[in-house]
Amino acid sequence: MAKVLLIILDGVADRALPELNGKTPLEAADTPTFDELAKEGINGIFYAIAPGIPPGSDTGHLAILGYDPIKVYTGRGVFEAAGVGIELKPGDVAFRGNLATVDENLTVLDRRAGRITEGTHELAAALSSIKLETAPDVEVIVKEATEHRVAVVFRGPSLSHRVSDTDPHKVGAKILECQPLEDSPQAQRTAQIVNEFMKRSHEILSSHPVNIQRAKEGKPPANIVLLRGPSIAMTIPSIEQRFSVKSAAIAAVALVRGVCKIAGMTTVEVPGADGSIYSKIENKGAAAVELLKTYDLVLIHIKGPDEASHDGDLEGKIKIIERADRMVSKMLDKIDAKLYLAITGDHATPLRVGDHTGDLVPLLIHGPGIIPDEVDEFCERAAMKGGLGQVRGLDLLPILLNYAGKMKKFGA
Amino acid sequence: MAKVLLIILDGVADRALPELNGKTPLEAADTPTFDELAKEGINGIFYAIAPGIPPGSDTGHLAILGYDPIKVYTGRGVFEAAGVGIELKPGDVAFRGNLATVDENLTVLDRRAGRITEGTHELAAALSSIKLETAPDVEVIVKEATEHRVAVVFRGPSLSHRVSDTDPHKVGAKILECQPLEDSPQAQRTAQIVNEFMKRSHEILSSHPVNIQRAKEGKPPANIVLLRGPSIAMTIPSIEQRFSVKSAAIAAVALVRGVCKIAGMTTVEVPGADGSIYSKIENKGAAAVELLKTYDLVLIHIKGPDEASHDGDLEGKIKIIERADRMVSKMLDKIDAKLYLAITGDHATPLRVGDHTGDLVPLLIHGPGIIPDEVDEFCERAAMKGGLGQVRGLDLLPILLNYAGKMKKFGA
Repeated sequence: MAKVLLIILDGVADRALPELNGKTPLEAADTPTFDELAKEGINGIFYAIAPGIPPGSDTGHLAILGYDPIKVYTGRGVFEAAGVGIELKPGDVAFRGNLATVDENLTVLDRRAGRITEGTHELAAALSSIKLETAPDVEVIVKEATEHRVAVVFRGPSLSHRVSDTDPHKVGAKILECQPLEDSPQAQRTAQIVNEFMKRSHEILSSHPVNIQRAKEGKPPANIVLLRGPSIAMTIPSIEQRFSVKSAAIAAVALVRGVCKIAGMTTVEVPGADGSIYSKIENKGAAAVELLKTYDLVLIHIKGPDEASHDGDLEGKIKIIERADRMVSKMLDKIDAKLYLAITGDHATPLRVGDHTGDLVPLLIHGPGIIPDEVDEFCERAAMKGGLGQVRGLDLLPILLNYAGKMKKFGA
Repeated sequence: MAKVLLIILDGVADRALPELNGKTPLEAADTPTFDELAKEGINGIFYAIAPGIPPGSDTGHLAILGYDPIKVYTGRGVFEAAGVGIELKPGDVAFRGNLATVDENLTVLDRRAGRITEGTHELAAALSSIKLETAPDVEVIVKEATEHRVAVVFRGPSLSHRVSDTDPHKVGAKILECQPLEDSPQAQRTAQIVNEFMKRSHEILSSHPVNIQRAKEGKPPANIVLLRGPSIAMTIPSIEQRFSVKSAAIAAVALVRGVCKIAGMTTVEVPGADGSIYSKIENKGAAAVELLKTYDLVLIHIKGPDEASHDGDLEGKIKIIERADRMVSKMLDKIDAKLYLAITGDHATPLRVGDHTGDLVPLLIHGPGIIPDEVDEFCERAAMKGGLGQVRGLDLLPILLNYAGKMKKFGA
């Protein structure tokens, strides 16, 4: 049975850079493996969402996995929560949270509580034990992510994500009261629940042993959780339900992992792979080779090019692209199965912009029987001549699964 | 007045074949006429439905004729029924049926009643006379197709296609009871009607003179009709209503003819044209030349390339493509009118796959005033460089009718 491997080089696409004599980082990078694959395969220009629309990491991956983000995206919270391992149920309302420091007037002194790293598991566990007085039918679930980050989920009937943040998004401001953003009993109830949670969490955290210890060490206490990005968990059909394929994803970034989990993919974390430009992506490659023995579709997400672009690090961006090229080369030596391999990005992150843009992204697809086009290099410029023309995120899985013989005929 | 001729080479597109040194059958075929038309015309890659989606013969042609199959397709039955000449009305529920042989316990002995050929008209007529006891307001219409195949239509108020097959789809199994697939009075009523039809048709067929004769000849009796693929006839605007053009189609395959009929096209069968690779397609060409004198838009459907692909017959596929090339050459000698000619396929049917796929299909459009692109050959690879880029089924008629001056301005 043919397998599908999809490699997402986050933010890989860029613009013509004067310091590279008008080349892009992808053109400047030495990528013999990618170039040979592009030459033997078919190419195109790729927009995860649509031309000119800068995708987020969540909406971009949703679209790549075949879910129209315009229809299913309500905010980042649910994907963050799924990414840190909370098993969401439809109707759950999820927030991203920061463990932060406030004074006695609830004015924010430090939005990250001194970038707290230790004791966050205990703090999150203490918050998860909260029984709300205003809504005894609602369960509170809090789980720590990296450093000061937490995910906060409210589970119960009649909740809404149409409420405002409590995070004032700046130091020196008081925490905000959560307000309903629409005139519905669900939004009013949820705002009330959130406000009780803010009060109760402040009380519980203020006297928590972790913070008493921090005080002794002269560190700012993590005495509140600032909430932002509310969203609601929806019922969406899994990739297996839609295409009858078993799929797995390897991603270091919790947000991307969360999208993959919500799509029903098995998600795998790999030692030493941390989403940075120094990430041990070779370990991702090796893990993917193993996964391809049992899964039909494996996605590898490589965050490095986006990280480097956000940091304006041209050299770093080129290096991580070259390392990804070597990773793919090693993988191909070890995969025996009939393989359809796609390499693309979820969006461009031009170095000069330092953020996601809606520019075109190169896409290559390689595998047996594919009719090659004239493209002989993996880069933005060459991809413009690609035989696939313009491809959008929602079409990518059908194209790949079609080559692999896994698309069912529509009609008779 | 400019005319439009649309030639659908069913399943013509393929993949790179090792036995052709990486060429496709279309590249290997000697097609001087197609190549010259491609050179003088404009080209593109075509997906009847969308990239990666393998179209059926019905959904593919629906899309080509400008009907979104996702919106209008409920199953194959209505198109088969229309294809064998039943004039459908909105709300009719149509099944495909097999004349089959069952024993006294209604266990299937032969799903095709020995591939019965004679007497099917009489059997169908006998079934059409059934007056249902459970639904006196419902008319039963049965019409024979080729060999053991029949179309069965139930016409009356409050029917639903959301019911299950009675065909167990295998020998040695009992016929299935028809079940409603949704909780509606329409589906329940239809299931009851179908179950009465099964019982009554078995009684009528068992004692029918055709079967008494078959028994004498030692042939299995056609003593039941196995039903599958229920669908409901919808009200869809005809091509003439949508574009104010008179259109006709020449297709040997009943399913395709049915789609064209439902689109309001005049359908024509041609002697000796049988959908095989030996089909007298020259007669189709000659018939189309005549039709173009009175119709604005003529579609010719050529089934051979798909047939050959399903059979894994590489030589046959190349041959029928070459014969289609000669057919077009002869036609062009005889057409005086200003002509816009399009040649494409409804989908790929790669020989190595042996079934429809969602791969790209070449499209060429030729006619006066069209600005030629760089393509100088009619094949998948060359089409990737086509000036039209990617074209989807729903856009094809507007593109063609626009060249022919028959598209109305949208707006002022």
